Amino acid sequence: MVTIRFLPHEKEIQVEPGTILLRAAMEAGVHINASCGGEGACGKCRVLIENGQVEGGGKEKLRPEDWDKGYRLACKSLVNEDILVLVPVESSVDSAVLNMASTPRRTAKIKEMSMEYLKEQGLFIPPVEKKCVELTAPSHGDNICDMTRLISHLRHKENEHGLEVNLSVLRKIPDVLRQENFKATLTLARPVRNECGKTRIINVQPGDTTNRNFALAIDIGTTTIYGEMVNCLTGEILAQYGEFNRQISYGEDVITRIVYAEKAGGLDKLHQAVIDTINTVIARLIKRSKIDVDDISAVALAGNTTMTQLLLKINTRHLRLSPYVPAATLYPPIKAADIGLDLAPHVTALVYPCISSYVGGDIVSGVMGSGMYLTEETTLFIDIGTNAEIVVGNKDWMMCAACSAGPAFEGGGVEHGMRASKGAIEDFSMDPITYEPMSLTIGNIRPKGICGSGLIIMLATMFELGVIDNQGKFHRNLGTKRIREKDGIWEYVVAWADETQIERDIVLTEVDIDNLIRAKGAMYSGCMTLLKEVGMDMQSLDRIILAGGFGSYIDLESAMTIGLLPELDPDKVIFVGNGSLLGARMSILTNRLRQDVVDVTNKMTNFELSETSSYMDNYIAALFLPHTDMGQFPRLKARMDARQAWREGKSGS
Amino acid sequence: MVTIRFLPHEKEIQVEPGTILLRAAMEAGVHINASCGGEGACGKCRVLIENGQVEGGGKEKLRPEDWDKGYRLACKSLVNEDILVLVPVESSVDSAVLNMASTPRRTAKIKEMSMEYLKEQGLFIPPVEKKCVELTAPSHGDNICDMTRLISHLRHKENEHGLEVNLSVLRKIPDVLRQENFKATLTLARPVRNECGKTRIINVQPGDTTNRNFALAIDIGTTTIYGEMVNCLTGEILAQYGEFNRQISYGEDVITRIVYAEKAGGLDKLHQAVIDTINTVIARLIKRSKIDVDDISAVALAGNTTMTQLLLKINTRHLRLSPYVPAATLYPPIKAADIGLDLAPHVTALVYPCISSYVGGDIVSGVMGSGMYLTEETTLFIDIGTNAEIVVGNKDWMMCAACSAGPAFEGGGVEHGMRASKGAIEDFSMDPITYEPMSLTIGNIRPKGICGSGLIIMLATMFELGVIDNQGKFHRNLGTKRIREKDGIWEYVVAWADETQIERDIVLTEVDIDNLIRAKGAMYSGCMTLLKEVGMDMQSLDRIILAGGFGSYIDLESAMTIGLLPELDPDKVIFVGNGSLLGARMSILTNRLRQDVVDVTNKMTNFELSETSSYMDNYIAALFLPHTDMGQFPRLKARMDARQAWREGKSGS
Repeated sequence: MVTIRFLPHEKEIQVEPGTILLRAAMEAGVHINASCGGEGACGKCRVLIENGQVEGGGKEKLRPEDWDKGYRLACKSLVNEDILVLVPVESSVDSAVLNMASTPRRTAKIKEMSMEYLKEQGLFIPPVEKKCVELTAPSHGDNICDMTRLISHLRHKENEHGLEVNLSVLRKIPDVLRQENFKATLTLARPVRNECGKTRIINVQPGDTTNRNFALAIDIGTTTIYGEMVNCLTGEILAQYGEFNRQISYGEDVITRIVYAEKAGGLDKLHQAVIDTINTVIARLIKRSKIDVDDISAVALAGNTTMTQLLLKINTRHLRLSPYVPAATLYPPIKAADIGLDLAPHVTALVYPCISSYVGGDIVSGVMGSGMYLTEETTLFIDIGTNAEIVVGNKDWMMCAACSAGPAFEGGGVEHGMRASKGAIEDFSMDPITYEPMSLTIGNIRPKGICGSGLIIMLATMFELGVIDNQGKFHRNLGTKRIREKDGIWEYVVAWADETQIERDIVLTEVDIDNLIRAKGAMYSGCMTLLKEVGMDMQSLDRIILAGGFGSYIDLESAMTIGLLPELDPDKVIFVGNGSLLGARMSILTNRLRQDVVDVTNKMTNFELSETSSYMDNYIAALFLPHTDMGQFPRLKARMDARQAWREGKSGS
Repeated sequence: MVTIRFLPHEKEIQVEPGTILLRAAMEAGVHINASCGGEGACGKCRVLIENGQVEGGGKEKLRPEDWDKGYRLACKSLVNEDILVLVPVESSVDSAVLNMASTPRRTAKIKEMSMEYLKEQGLFIPPVEKKCVELTAPSHGDNICDMTRLISHLRHKENEHGLEVNLSVLRKIPDVLRQENFKATLTLARPVRNECGKTRIINVQPGDTTNRNFALAIDIGTTTIYGEMVNCLTGEILAQYGEFNRQISYGEDVITRIVYAEKAGGLDKLHQAVIDTINTVIARLIKRSKIDVDDISAVALAGNTTMTQLLLKINTRHLRLSPYVPAATLYPPIKAADIGLDLAPHVTALVYPCISSYVGGDIVSGVMGSGMYLTEETTLFIDIGTNAEIVVGNKDWMMCAACSAGPAFEGGGVEHGMRASKGAIEDFSMDPITYEPMSLTIGNIRPKGICGSGLIIMLATMFELGVIDNQGKFHRNLGTKRIREKDGIWEYVVAWADETQIERDIVLTEVDIDNLIRAKGAMYSGCMTLLKEVGMDMQSLDRIILAGGFGSYIDLESAMTIGLLPELDPDKVIFVGNGSLLGARMSILTNRLRQDVVDVTNKMTNFELSETSSYMDNYIAALFLPHTDMGQFPRLKARMDARQAWREGKSGS
């Protein structure tokens, strides 16, 4: 056995000689960013071997100077002797930032989903309700069983009929009833629809606990899992917490994970990883909100189709193989404990339905939670993340599509791209004369890289200032040393090495820009193709809802400047933040969502962009800044014409 | 640590010095009969210490000569050194006999429950059904999810509506559908009632498996657990198997077990013991019937209230404390795997409802399975075991009661009493002149003791021949050495030591007879009190159903002679054998039982004998052979009068 010591974690592990360093790190609980699932493709798992030598190391993927300094790719390194490894900051993920208090740029609530409206309309009906009962104690003349005593009381005194009961309640009832002299509180799970539905007694507690009824909302993102503890009596959010999805260790994107799940034991591992992460989130929420786990009555979960199938431990293979068929799109209510969640046996997990392999429960949840499905206004709903999912429609009809924009806006395929976490450049401006930058990072610390919102602003700024042309190529003659050619690739130096945390220049290269243009092109053409398919254009829309963690921080003007979004009236735009979490929360506050969600799911038509020839045409046309057809961006055109005129005037003066 | 070696098992165990020998045996997997749960009261756990010494040993409970030979009570012995222990045959239970082919004395089937009748009436509807479907494979133009494809096919081609689905089916469906090109077989669980009920898809298998659909019926007896594997397509019983309930290690009767369950961890242990036993029975049935566990679709279980609560791991404490309140009498359908049964995750366990603390699901099952609840004939149903449960009524009304007869007829409280297993005297006759016995044992081997049916015949024979009087006392002057006084107690030697397997005389003492009279008195007065309560007498009955393993082997004439049963017309008597197992089996063959059982349970009025003053009067009057009131036994009286006349004639001649 050989010993590996990891810094700055101060963790040690003993492994068989010949073990891959990345796997050893995983086993030691040391997180190293590896977007490609360990195949050596992404080059993100750079570590510094401080003592000892490894075999291999991925020389061809590293810059020669980094190689000479001792940097190696953990996924390409075999450990044959004792080594000391430093994991550089940019290679490790940091979940602290997920929970920093920060406000989306602009959020609005839709009336139909506000607590006030729900209460006013009598729609504030959580799926679980508590009732306190005081029963007559049994006697010789009246020794019917505990359950019949209870049900008979509910029938005659509370007008509750057709009750069903859980085994866990049977197990508790004899002791619980006698604990406070036959005064007890029941948790009742209401049927989704009253006709034919039965109310189920899911828990029984001694005494009166009706003032304690809580539920959890969970958004299962590919990257991040967010949770909220909600007070079912008031709708108040008691605690929020986010944690990186531990499945990241098996690959950053869904396809890599599906491939991993096909290996022997892979599905179990991915299932366990997401369950472990959710359990960590739940434990933290319970601690923060200082409640008793027995008082949690329900959990609602939403995630994309792959995340949902992995949550439920369903083979995901056919999601990635043509013709892309999910196992199911509607999921039955499941006992939370049956999938391994650390909740009481009575808790039912409500899992949001999906639409197709690539339009998942997170989108359905957003559509439900944002109230889009209730409005008469024609609405475009866009959830921007690794993929962009688009829904167009209103309460009468809905059509959806997914376009795989790729991970560029989440930092993938961009040399210094990173997720929106501490040290990421999120805002940017440029001196129009000297082209010197001004960067702001999350947490206001020295930069580590650039996150999605930063990339968009950077691109828009450079384009508007003429630093890059409409193909994303740098003007070679602007007279600033920040624009340079290196190893045959042109780049702009956003921060010099000594200004950064990573001791390397942070740059934006033409290769990065190309990837960003492809990503924004995919999104834009997705919107346009879908709108065209339903015979509409941007002008016919009454409302645009932007969802997604990233979507909430986006600078609208910049997004339109680079042609990520079509030009639209900013007054029509509503940011809802994490739509998936919003919908999950709303479904534990109003039964109406659970009633309506099946109809909405059935109503929503899935549109496969990849099978529409016009999508590819639209995509190619969108591979420019902002687009080949400037006529689609009249406001930008006017600004650029004015700037051109000013420049010409200036040069003419 | 000290070492204990058990013979004839050849098992060894190491324990801490000071360990109780009975506990060590339990841990070593050596069964020693201990009726009293290890409290030193029953004196059954006699073992012979062949090498070494134990501390204590229960001298006061043993005959001096046994003590001198080295016999000790295992429950009273502390092990402080290495010992060699011989467990005598009569102290160990032997399950082989449970599975010997044997036929009850007389059985009859009730028309309404015959397979022919059910098929003829269209009532042969098992709660689980298989259907084979052939779906169109998905394609680019038709990539709806697997589940929707399946459900839509069922809706349009099979007219199946309102389907629900199990998580386990979701997990299997992607692979199973693709295994035989979208040809698959579904297992459908039908609702108990059609209105509002939903059919549930509980399993999916590749290809066509409709010719393989099986279910299990299990009778959970306090002493023995019997199981049957049933073919749901034909109603055929493929295999039967019985095994002693492993809870016996914690006490022979329900009260001892309830007390044990109140100790820390006790409930878990008793629950695990019954689950382990059922799993052994299931494994054996699967092996014997050579079927695949995935083709078992349902299991129906019936047991008394204590057995049922222990099966479900529900606190049993309040069953034994006044006012004797069960946790529940109706149980929801439960996933078999949720209570630890080794069956596929799709299998639902149907647990028979109970009536009260002392009238359990075994009786309800008997009433259902025997068809008593369907007949217009006024019927008396008696299940004779450790306790006797009595039901009187017909399809319109029913009243039930339990009388705790005690374990005398199962061998408890009778010095050489034993369960009906190999070596038990089950039939007996006596020479009326010499009073020499003729005994037949189960398995036709040298006797070990006397089982219930043997005790009844013995008692009846001795009473009719005038060997004992109507108070059960031996005539002291019959001139046979078989009747003798020993340690102040009169007894009859049934077998001399050298004729037995136990190397001691097998005797029936006046103390034994006294216990038997008390037991039969309790049963008789239970019947009489209940009949009187409903304004009836024996003559008003149209039919008598005798159930229970013991009930099936009983000699009717002898039972009436000793006043265990009232005098009744033998033509009215139907033996149904194990009523509990019968009802469990029928409920997996016809959904009608599950439909009706709730009504029957609600209809059945429980009558607490112990709270009726007339019960005690009846009981005291019944503490004679056959009864203080010979007028209730006219046929016996005529026989005895005739015999008396013959004797007088003989002595007069």
